[in-house]
Amino acid sequence: MTDLILKKQKETGVKLLWNTQNMFSHNRYKDGASTSPDVDVFSYACAQTKKMLEISKKLGGENHVFWGGREGFMTPLNTDVRRELDHMAAFMKMAVDYKKNIGHNPQFLIEPKPREPTAHQYDYDVQTVIGFLRTYGLENDFKINIEPNHTTLAGHDYEHDIRMASAYGMLGSIDCNAGQPYLGWDTDEFPSDPRKAMLCMGIIINQGGIAPGGNNFDSKLRRESTDLDDMFVAHIGGMDCLARGVKAAAKAKEDGELENFIKNRYKSWDGALGKKVEAGSATLEEVAQHAFKCGEPKQISGKQEYLEQLLNTYF
Amino acid sequence: MTDLILKKQKETGVKLLWNTQNMFSHNRYKDGASTSPDVDVFSYACAQTKKMLEISKKLGGENHVFWGGREGFMTPLNTDVRRELDHMAAFMKMAVDYKKNIGHNPQFLIEPKPREPTAHQYDYDVQTVIGFLRTYGLENDFKINIEPNHTTLAGHDYEHDIRMASAYGMLGSIDCNAGQPYLGWDTDEFPSDPRKAMLCMGIIINQGGIAPGGNNFDSKLRRESTDLDDMFVAHIGGMDCLARGVKAAAKAKEDGELENFIKNRYKSWDGALGKKVEAGSATLEEVAQHAFKCGEPKQISGKQEYLEQLLNTYF
Amino acid sequence: MTDLILKKQKETGVKLLWNTQNMFSHNRYKDGASTSPDVDVFSYACAQTKKMLEISKKLGGENHVFWGGREGFMTPLNTDVRRELDHMAAFMKMAVDYKKNIGHNPQFLIEPKPREPTAHQYDYDVQTVIGFLRTYGLENDFKINIEPNHTTLAGHDYEHDIRMASAYGMLGSIDCNAGQPYLGWDTDEFPSDPRKAMLCMGIIINQGGIAPGGNNFDSKLRRESTDLDDMFVAHIGGMDCLARGVKAAAKAKEDGELENFIKNRYKSWDGALGKKVEAGSATLEEVAQHAFKCGEPKQISGKQEYLEQLLNTYF
Amino acid sequence: MTDLILKKQKETGVKLLWNTQNMFSHNRYKDGASTSPDVDVFSYACAQTKKMLEISKKLGGENHVFWGGREGFMTPLNTDVRRELDHMAAFMKMAVDYKKNIGHNPQFLIEPKPREPTAHQYDYDVQTVIGFLRTYGLENDFKINIEPNHTTLAGHDYEHDIRMASAYGMLGSIDCNAGQPYLGWDTDEFPSDPRKAMLCMGIIINQGGIAPGGNNFDSKLRRESTDLDDMFVAHIGGMDCLARGVKAAAKAKEDGELENFIKNRYKSWDGALGKKVEAGSATLEEVAQHAFKCGEPKQISGKQEYLEQLLNTYF
Repeated sequence: MTDLILKKQKETGVKLLWNTQNMFSHNRYKDGASTSPDVDVFSYACAQTKKMLEISKKLGGENHVFWGGREGFMTPLNTDVRRELDHMAAFMKMAVDYKKNIGHNPQFLIEPKPREPTAHQYDYDVQTVIGFLRTYGLENDFKINIEPNHTTLAGHDYEHDIRMASAYGMLGSIDCNAGQPYLGWDTDEFPSDPRKAMLCMGIIINQGGIAPGGNNFDSKLRRESTDLDDMFVAHIGGMDCLARGVKAAAKAKEDGELENFIKNRYKSWDGALGKKVEAGSATLEEVAQHAFKCGEPKQISGKQEYLEQLLNTYF
Repeated sequence: MTDLILKKQKETGVKLLWNTQNMFSHNRYKDGASTSPDVDVFSYACAQTKKMLEISKKLGGENHVFWGGREGFMTPLNTDVRRELDHMAAFMKMAVDYKKNIGHNPQFLIEPKPREPTAHQYDYDVQTVIGFLRTYGLENDFKINIEPNHTTLAGHDYEHDIRMASAYGMLGSIDCNAGQPYLGWDTDEFPSDPRKAMLCMGIIINQGGIAPGGNNFDSKLRRESTDLDDMFVAHIGGMDCLARGVKAAAKAKEDGELENFIKNRYKSWDGALGKKVEAGSATLEEVAQHAFKCGEPKQISGKQEYLEQLLNTYF
Repeated sequence: MTDLILKKQKETGVKLLWNTQNMFSHNRYKDGASTSPDVDVFSYACAQTKKMLEISKKLGGENHVFWGGREGFMTPLNTDVRRELDHMAAFMKMAVDYKKNIGHNPQFLIEPKPREPTAHQYDYDVQTVIGFLRTYGLENDFKINIEPNHTTLAGHDYEHDIRMASAYGMLGSIDCNAGQPYLGWDTDEFPSDPRKAMLCMGIIINQGGIAPGGNNFDSKLRRESTDLDDMFVAHIGGMDCLARGVKAAAKAKEDGELENFIKNRYKSWDGALGKKVEAGSATLEEVAQHAFKCGEPKQISGKQEYLEQLLNTYF
Repeated sequence: MTDLILKKQKETGVKLLWNTQNMFSHNRYKDGASTSPDVDVFSYACAQTKKMLEISKKLGGENHVFWGGREGFMTPLNTDVRRELDHMAAFMKMAVDYKKNIGHNPQFLIEPKPREPTAHQYDYDVQTVIGFLRTYGLENDFKINIEPNHTTLAGHDYEHDIRMASAYGMLGSIDCNAGQPYLGWDTDEFPSDPRKAMLCMGIIINQGGIAPGGNNFDSKLRRESTDLDDMFVAHIGGMDCLARGVKAAAKAKEDGELENFIKNRYKSWDGALGKKVEAGSATLEEVAQHAFKCGEPKQISGKQEYLEQLLNTYF
């Protein structure tokens, strides 16, 4: 099978951008894979991951996604959350080591989701994942694969986790599915709102691209869409929506007004005191002294209403 | 004023358990205190914190709470989230240094809240705060003050953040307010559900207490409760509810069934392989080997339904 | 098959309390059953319902539940909501007529749910259903079957819809499943919170029972609960929880304090003016006149904090 | 004061489009106005409404809005929901009668909101209000004033209640505020999403306008927006957003594709059987017969993905 795919890859030049191991569908993983209370199940997770890394090496996989589909808990009454998270970290360290040992270097990605299937997923959102990685010293070995539909389930705005990941150099790739704001489960719809696409694309542009990751459709048709052409229309439409977004984001970038507004809003920090604080060499006392000299700060408008309408001029 | 309080303290023996600086009500802090885009505002936050630390020293304050009431953003369109978080971290480092300099050692506590007043608060929940502290090397200088009503606003179960903080040695204190699950804002009600109180108290018992922190009522009466005695009834009732909870938790602890169930559920990890994984000395290859030997793992029931009813027998 | 069941019924004396027709699983109903845009699909829904009414007659069915599993819409972009609701009403009228024609008289019940599987279900909650029934003149032909887990998905408290239905004489039966407040989908768990059970049971007691309906477990085990005895434990535990609830509710009823508090709170309405307003014979002018005579009303406490703790004394 | 306004009205020709009485700010109304447990408070609500109707008559008010700001409950433990709703209905009947008596005929509007300030507001959403009006025979005396920000707090899509109200001829007016989907309280922001504005405007166009109601900004600036010009920018920007919406909706209407798609989707209902069902003269038996003749219905695609992208071509 792997050889067949390899042959096809060579013929067509198509690359393997993303791969993953499915450690959530099989009943064996009902209580978790790397977070299973049963070390035998944990060993299956390791075997499966090892195999997948070897296949990924053969096929030249560029991104390897860890979505912890069953890594979480249904009830805390039967769960030792700390022990489970320790096991998840141990698993990830072993996977990082193995990847290096076999001389294969795909980007490792964690994909957060707050709940579903379990009541509480350990990889809740980007900031939770960053905390996990830093707690266990894994922050240089993983980036984050963000699905905005998962972000909204965690109670954040659509593009929020893309923003937070990018701010800390952790944005690795995107599953660009959309959900519906008032539904409490993952619907994996194709993106159709250019305004939201623009907000995501602007962040990618600002960080200078997202390779070796990208925008992946992990979407599906609605059950009601039963025509053969719906599949084509959905993919073309989704790409069209992203294109509208990236064009608007590029226009905004060229225009510069949004970017300059933010830059200018923080300009007081570019003075001597701000620089000293940012360099970590100021003391509470000396900054406090400044308050007695500067007088009551002027009220400076945040201009939210203006900026919200400004966005619309880029379409 | 401080001297007056000091005098009263000496007369009555009452200690100052918690103190904080209010850096959210004054209009000056409309865009944040330590995360303000204006370095002048930041300096006011420093001056106010410095002053409060000095007063706290005089009064023997045991816990100093940082609730970042305006540390967040209303719209990302005008916000540089990374720069703001860097400033917040710089502020906290300076506060830690100052506390040490003046020879005062209260427990420093961060109180998470996901939103309100801003649309996105930086200290979203316990795991977000742990990530922040570890990102900036502050994890040994702060513990966490948890208000369950904030936890539920972040989409977690009532006692979830208490559990996660305790699991990582970060549970410092509790504002034991309750909210209502289907309201989207902080109602600060007095606790009235003994079952929830039991779940919180069990975690405190398991970690061997919570001093120098404790359970603080940061609650308020409903607007409709206008009798003088409502204030007494609410406090007495809230304490009674906590007492019912702690009694049930103690009974469960003595009974041991819940605790043993969890311990037993992970017993396969106490074997040679599990110990090696937990010690960080196993490789993916050797754990994977185990999968080929152990055969398909047995299905072991999580017994959630049983455990949920077991709780009720402790009341 | 029907005959076999009938035979078993006769042998055992077990009655058929609830029956329904499943018009949501088959792909034919993907766009709705009685609200399908396709009249052919509508006719299948009618045929299935007709058949089920005939079987129910044979078996002596006492309650016939209409859960509109696919009666709603995924997107308004392809939906004529008014036409679909008109069709749903027409279907229900025909079902009522048919039931009468064949001389079978089970209680007809509509079961509300706000979303899932569709993005918007027409039978959102109790008050929406009452509005639908009254709009189409069906209010005397249907009562409501309430699943508290659906109620909470609509953003109401657990027992809210039971209360509202009972207040208007529309409470017909209960699927006494529980959900989890912070999950956005239907989990169909067995009830395990006696306090919530008490609130439901108190309403049933106050309306003098719920026959011919009852409390039905439409619940399922968690996927993680894999022991044979889990099924028994879950049912026994669920019943035990309801029993704790009904005992507490009965104790509260006998005690009378809660009931008297409410009665007393409205006592000003038992005077001449209140009676006239309630009889519908007062005018705005004469009631307004009263305001000029009565002076600024006294503040009377709602005593919420007291009442919330009072509940706990009944366990 | 009224005379002064009247004089200004005459000078400028500006009409009084909306008026209301505030029966929620004063402490007297803490437990409700028309739903207060105290008949004296009820009488104040009547006096205030009477006065306001008289002023509105003088000033030629065209719409009179009833937002039941405190008509709901904080806890059911102290509340007789049925009695309160009966009183609310009695109050509304008296107001209708009084309006007729004084020869003044503004459109009466109820404005739904699901919660805030109370935990449960009686006028939850459009369908709840329709149910209330029909239960008490008030359906011909009131239309509905919809604030989409309230709609989303009830768990519906932004334009959902506008659609449902219009479908039943009950759409009277709109407070065109926007909220944020992941915040649990009313933020009263100026609208800034043209796509959402288009969906609302399309419904208004389809019902042939909304006079004597209209689109009202009941919005406020963010606290952070402190410049004088922010107020102008916000109003201009909000109107600009609505204009983008109405232009796109008009373009879609002229194009006809969306409208025709829906019409065509239900075309099977235009045949003999469909017409008979819609006329209310079909029986379950004869419709069921059709199922045996028509064979398994063809799967017809709902084409959601296509339609979602189609919207974007109108901007």
